[in-house]
Amino acid sequence: MAKPKNILFIMFDQLRWDYLGCYGHKHLHTPHIDRLASKGVRFTRAYIQSPICGSSRMSTYTGRYVHSHGASWNFTPLKVGEMTMGDHLRDAGMDAWLVGKTHMEADEEGMARLGLDPDSKIGARVAECGFDIWERDDGMVTKGPDGSFAEGGITNAHNYTNYLKARGYESENPWHDFANSGIDAEGNVLSGWFLKNSTEAANIADEDSETPYMTTRAMEFIEGHDGPWMCHLSYIKPHWPYIVPEPYHDMYGPEHVQGPIRSAAEYDDAHPVLRGMMESPVGKAFSTDKIRNAVIPAYMGLIKQCDDQMGRLFKWLEDTGRMDETMIVLTSDHGDFLGDHWMGEKQFFHDTSTRVPLIVYDPSPKADATRGTVSDALVECIDFAPTFVEVAGGKPASHILEGHSLLPILHGTATEMPRDHVICEYDYAATPLADKLGLNVREAVMFMVADKDWKLIHCEGGFRPILFDLVNDPHELTDLGDRADMAPVIERMYDKLFRWARRTSQRTTRTEEQLIEMRTSTRRRGVIIGVYDENDIPLELSVHYRGRKAKDMKTGRQTEQT
Amino acid sequence: MAKPKNILFIMFDQLRWDYLGCYGHKHLHTPHIDRLASKGVRFTRAYIQSPICGSSRMSTYTGRYVHSHGASWNFTPLKVGEMTMGDHLRDAGMDAWLVGKTHMEADEEGMARLGLDPDSKIGARVAECGFDIWERDDGMVTKGPDGSFAEGGITNAHNYTNYLKARGYESENPWHDFANSGIDAEGNVLSGWFLKNSTEAANIADEDSETPYMTTRAMEFIEGHDGPWMCHLSYIKPHWPYIVPEPYHDMYGPEHVQGPIRSAAEYDDAHPVLRGMMESPVGKAFSTDKIRNAVIPAYMGLIKQCDDQMGRLFKWLEDTGRMDETMIVLTSDHGDFLGDHWMGEKQFFHDTSTRVPLIVYDPSPKADATRGTVSDALVECIDFAPTFVEVAGGKPASHILEGHSLLPILHGTATEMPRDHVICEYDYAATPLADKLGLNVREAVMFMVADKDWKLIHCEGGFRPILFDLVNDPHELTDLGDRADMAPVIERMYDKLFRWARRTSQRTTRTEEQLIEMRTSTRRRGVIIGVYDENDIPLELSVHYRGRKAKDMKTGRQTEQT
Repeated sequence: MAKPKNILFIMFDQLRWDYLGCYGHKHLHTPHIDRLASKGVRFTRAYIQSPICGSSRMSTYTGRYVHSHGASWNFTPLKVGEMTMGDHLRDAGMDAWLVGKTHMEADEEGMARLGLDPDSKIGARVAECGFDIWERDDGMVTKGPDGSFAEGGITNAHNYTNYLKARGYESENPWHDFANSGIDAEGNVLSGWFLKNSTEAANIADEDSETPYMTTRAMEFIEGHDGPWMCHLSYIKPHWPYIVPEPYHDMYGPEHVQGPIRSAAEYDDAHPVLRGMMESPVGKAFSTDKIRNAVIPAYMGLIKQCDDQMGRLFKWLEDTGRMDETMIVLTSDHGDFLGDHWMGEKQFFHDTSTRVPLIVYDPSPKADATRGTVSDALVECIDFAPTFVEVAGGKPASHILEGHSLLPILHGTATEMPRDHVICEYDYAATPLADKLGLNVREAVMFMVADKDWKLIHCEGGFRPILFDLVNDPHELTDLGDRADMAPVIERMYDKLFRWARRTSQRTTRTEEQLIEMRTSTRRRGVIIGVYDENDIPLELSVHYRGRKAKDMKTGRQTEQT
Repeated sequence: MAKPKNILFIMFDQLRWDYLGCYGHKHLHTPHIDRLASKGVRFTRAYIQSPICGSSRMSTYTGRYVHSHGASWNFTPLKVGEMTMGDHLRDAGMDAWLVGKTHMEADEEGMARLGLDPDSKIGARVAECGFDIWERDDGMVTKGPDGSFAEGGITNAHNYTNYLKARGYESENPWHDFANSGIDAEGNVLSGWFLKNSTEAANIADEDSETPYMTTRAMEFIEGHDGPWMCHLSYIKPHWPYIVPEPYHDMYGPEHVQGPIRSAAEYDDAHPVLRGMMESPVGKAFSTDKIRNAVIPAYMGLIKQCDDQMGRLFKWLEDTGRMDETMIVLTSDHGDFLGDHWMGEKQFFHDTSTRVPLIVYDPSPKADATRGTVSDALVECIDFAPTFVEVAGGKPASHILEGHSLLPILHGTATEMPRDHVICEYDYAATPLADKLGLNVREAVMFMVADKDWKLIHCEGGFRPILFDLVNDPHELTDLGDRADMAPVIERMYDKLFRWARRTSQRTTRTEEQLIEMRTSTRRRGVIIGVYDENDIPLELSVHYRGRKAKDMKTGRQTEQT
């Protein structure tokens, strides 16, 4: 088989790159994922395009930078008209199905303006980020004084809430009350939203919890579809709420929590934007041992459960002969600070958040040369879409897709990607930090540009840059952005960012081939510019304008009437 | 009347800013346009966003930079989903009608992908750049070995070709054979495509030629529509073919041709990209006196005819009482080098091409303070859309529209626009010059950034910048881009370009107000991050997660069955 027939594109949510056995975690053993790595290529410098779920995913799904597609924060809709992985793959003859999360927010205004009915086939795909839906589940059934967080996140009747209810989990919100909460001896629900409860076992059977459920749903999809398909199996976990069922809830304890990557100087000398993040409630919370020791064991348990489900899934694929015809890509949408650098959550640019695990298993003989190898090529999440298009037998639309296919690396014909830097962006205009720093919605934006040696972070709003020396300070503990002797490095990194910012990203309606063809076509369509005499150009270009006869009409139709 | 009821948005094609009486032309008297200037504000630093018809217009119609909308050359379609002036105006309760040219190229692939029928009301508007069509006429009925140049440029049955045929102009292409050609004594058509024929009278009655025809069509539109409307009266002239009917064809001769703005050093020391333009066939042609003396009198005659038609139109508006309720905007889509700087056509950044005439007449009393004044504010063509939305009573969508309303200047409450530079872009990837310079489709792109003092031009592809001192060298004859002592100026202008390139231009699906509101809304929808105990946050945020009871389901539904 020259190329895989199908693609299983597995994404975990908020899985740090260094929380897997094959990436070196000391206490967290993930043999199933590690085995996939031994059969494929493991990438050590795979970066996402934005350290937040929605925007990172929209870059993955469109194959375009955030600055290009504009969905720069959660709940900023992906504008109608943006093409997605699904559109490109269908053009190449491969279906694109979703099982799980996308964090897609439909551009309802744009759809209404264009008269697109969300219940039509085209409208449904536009609303669902170009996927056909086996199951859509963004994994948040929340409730607050102003309603729910992610009302569009569950779009079909076959959903997890209904599954739980059918399985006897009695509640109007079994997602919260069982899958994401513990229970005490008196039957009180111990909500997983509160981190003190992270040490509890979720009040649910392992098999009914979110990760096994979605694995089963993927197997149901695969069993019913011959292909060629790309199936996006997109898990909700190990994203918060941090709580996991037995037996995972007590597999790890504070003794397995790796010390935080941080320094006192890092806090004391922090750049104002970083300081704002450190001093936010979540930054302060995750800087405490109390919270780290409650949360991280649960986070590790969630990942261990993910790995066990990978074992189940991969064995089933092998047993059914599908492993030989299916490319498997395993990655994450971003990491989690977990108290490193005095921060929580993911919304900044340290590798902790922006670097993700990436393992690609290609069953084709062409990939035999690279099995079990490790690549430090600079990969971006916008590279998945062109890779998949190439696997599907198509030619990636390079005037739309901003990434590059990974196949040359997978097949051993290249060791580097055709780029000398990666870009990551974060738009915090819609966050409390923007208010705190007194920034308007255009100033609360930042960019990261990194190569293998340096990482520069530019924050709009008049701040100095942040700079990390990735070679001598791989943990990014010392910000060199205010050091005069770093000026040449800063200038060089800014040059890269400037070049990127000027790129042609919106000329998506003409291919490179069409543009080249247009270089000679205008004259051949009868436009003649700057030519004095018809004999100054080849006859064929002027023939339609020569040897013509007409009546004298200088005074108009009166001529005709006389 | 606080605000004008209707807007008449008049655009000429390829009308140089300095070829009008009120802008100082020595021999070309344009009393009617000058009179409009005496009743409104005349702008002396109005810049277009790209020195080519299609892209300049797409910026005008979308209110967005070329780098944002992507239609960066003629025949690069405006992508489906881009909102236009018409969309914004209809949202504000004002219709938007077209009489004349847009150079719109519909995104047929995008429309097909979204299932948009070009014959539906929505589809037709998308295909026609958001306008309702009274008459669409891009003014090119060409024929060459590979077909016609602008097949989509004439879209309704009531068109100029049919008009001419009905008026007795017998030909399958009366646009060419009569409106744009002369005739000799033997009845031979003297094609206006060949510049030696520019001195001839077009073989058509003045009243049947393009400018009077389109004026009449606009009057027919206005008479039949009560409003509120924005009517885009968009003339084809004085764009080539350079030929004009009696009596305009011999009003001007070589003695009225102003000397070319150029120097020998300018040619000898030219930057490689400029040199490429100078050495192109059209550059060489317009550098000769022979061609300038043939073409420029015809060009002046075409403008004189335009001015006479303005007189006819404005008098009719006055006679019918419409002058008091109609804002009139008069401008051009770009200029014409006409041999200045050793170049022809318009595809570079000297003021000759990028600066356009702009006169705005606002009948409302608020504008009385500025009647007959001149403004040197830095205006861009993306400012029209927000201006019109404000006149229509709407609030310009600042998350989509990149320009700013001109009303503060028109009403005398501001003297400057809220910007410190203007931007112009040119994408020549689809031109022969790119081939000649050996540039790929991403390198054949250039940017201009100018303030009132300096103009910097950056060409991708590894070239040095071009720099003009607009104060001491207003004719832009001396390129200072290679001067070491100019480094600080060059750096400052590059900083402006960089800032612009990083701007948030694609976040078009959330308003500024929505983003501000989102700063506090997430928590109020039940997402609780970094909180250890429910008592650490206000009760209302956690109430839905407190005091809940459940069955113990840790081992799943078996619990229920026992």
